[in-house]
Amino acid sequence: MSTPLRFGLLLFPRLTQLDMTGPFEVLSRIPGGRVDLVWKTRDPVTSDTGLAMLPTLTFAECPQLDVVCVPGGPGVAALMEDEEVLAFLRAQAAGARFVTSVCTGALVLAAAGLLRGKRATTHWASHDFLAPLGAVPEQGRVVRDGKFVTGGGVTAGIDFALSLAAELASPEVAQAIQLQIEYAPAPPFDAGSPVTAPAGVLATAKARGAGMRAEREALVARVAARLA
Amino acid sequence: MSTPLRFGLLLFPRLTQLDMTGPFEVLSRIPGGRVDLVWKTRDPVTSDTGLAMLPTLTFAECPQLDVVCVPGGPGVAALMEDEEVLAFLRAQAAGARFVTSVCTGALVLAAAGLLRGKRATTHWASHDFLAPLGAVPEQGRVVRDGKFVTGGGVTAGIDFALSLAAELASPEVAQAIQLQIEYAPAPPFDAGSPVTAPAGVLATAKARGAGMRAEREALVARVAARLA
Repeated sequence: MSTPLRFGLLLFPRLTQLDMTGPFEVLSRIPGGRVDLVWKTRDPVTSDTGLAMLPTLTFAECPQLDVVCVPGGPGVAALMEDEEVLAFLRAQAAGARFVTSVCTGALVLAAAGLLRGKRATTHWASHDFLAPLGAVPEQGRVVRDGKFVTGGGVTAGIDFALSLAAELASPEVAQAIQLQIEYAPAPPFDAGSPVTAPAGVLATAKARGAGMRAEREALVARVAARLA
Repeated sequence: MSTPLRFGLLLFPRLTQLDMTGPFEVLSRIPGGRVDLVWKTRDPVTSDTGLAMLPTLTFAECPQLDVVCVPGGPGVAALMEDEEVLAFLRAQAAGARFVTSVCTGALVLAAAGLLRGKRATTHWASHDFLAPLGAVPEQGRVVRDGKFVTGGGVTAGIDFALSLAAELASPEVAQAIQLQIEYAPAPPFDAGSPVTAPAGVLATAKARGAGMRAEREALVARVAARLA
């Protein structure tokens, strides 16, 4: 393991920024840790909601990471067929202590062939894409299979990163970070999972996602054929 | 109320990025909403943990907002004596539908004289600074007093923003967003508040914050004298 502990989060166009910024906040508070945002260039990258952020390292500049993490978002679709991205992830994965994702970032790891036979999770609305891509789908906010750690949708990244902090530093360090970020969640509703959301809210969400799902199904079929 | 619903989040050097990015994710998913990041210039602004983000509007370019929100972080100290920032907030507050903060952003609203006699909350470690600055401290993850809505530390911004979405759009819209961001939190520890954190973890956090607290006390005393 290198000193300092090197974390690299993939930054890419149309990522869901909270998939990345939640873990970023937690991981950058680990004493002795360094978190970089890695992308093809250092030009600003804009999230699906319009937040423009600056990468800190290009793929070419990036040393071997201890932890590589792929966040999710609509931009994942392009990454799943982007050989430059997939090759970077494969190369990092070979030497990394943990290979991780939040949300639909898991689909990119899978597209790189990294989740073959591994238990994994992803955003609830994309969970059924894990199996065709060779992973073993598991329900869970954070799922670990050896060095592969995958988080559920968006805000699951905070729970994911606290788990990682406990593992890489100590439970006390993770608890100290949880206290600093006052993570004693009190959602005003109980609608955060398809199991608890009101039926009407879930139905509307599924109807809205239908168009993207059709495209995504075709993409997953193409990538699955390539992986086979 | 304008069309679209205009949200403005203050971006400033050494903010705690998750104070801003949590609400940003929620608010930018409100149909008919537009979220801007407002600062003195459009140059990149870097968080206390090194995340560089681009403002979308300068103070001069910013129209009347429906909702103005000040996140927190170490950089708050400079804002509390920055007349350009305080004047911008006072001018926006006069016409805004909601004047809000997350974390220690409440101290900036208070320094602008906007929380006089208003019930408010902030990060637990700064809660006792509210009273000297004229606010009425209240424990709570989200505290509303008329058009003033303040959130607790860092991750409270997600709960805060969902509450605001329910108020400004509808409970169904807020629930749909909660489902999209899979906000069914499952922290691996119960250390997110000073009430539940292990005693040793809390003691260490307080000891580490002691240096900053001394500086912050002097600052609060100066600002309180100016407000008196």
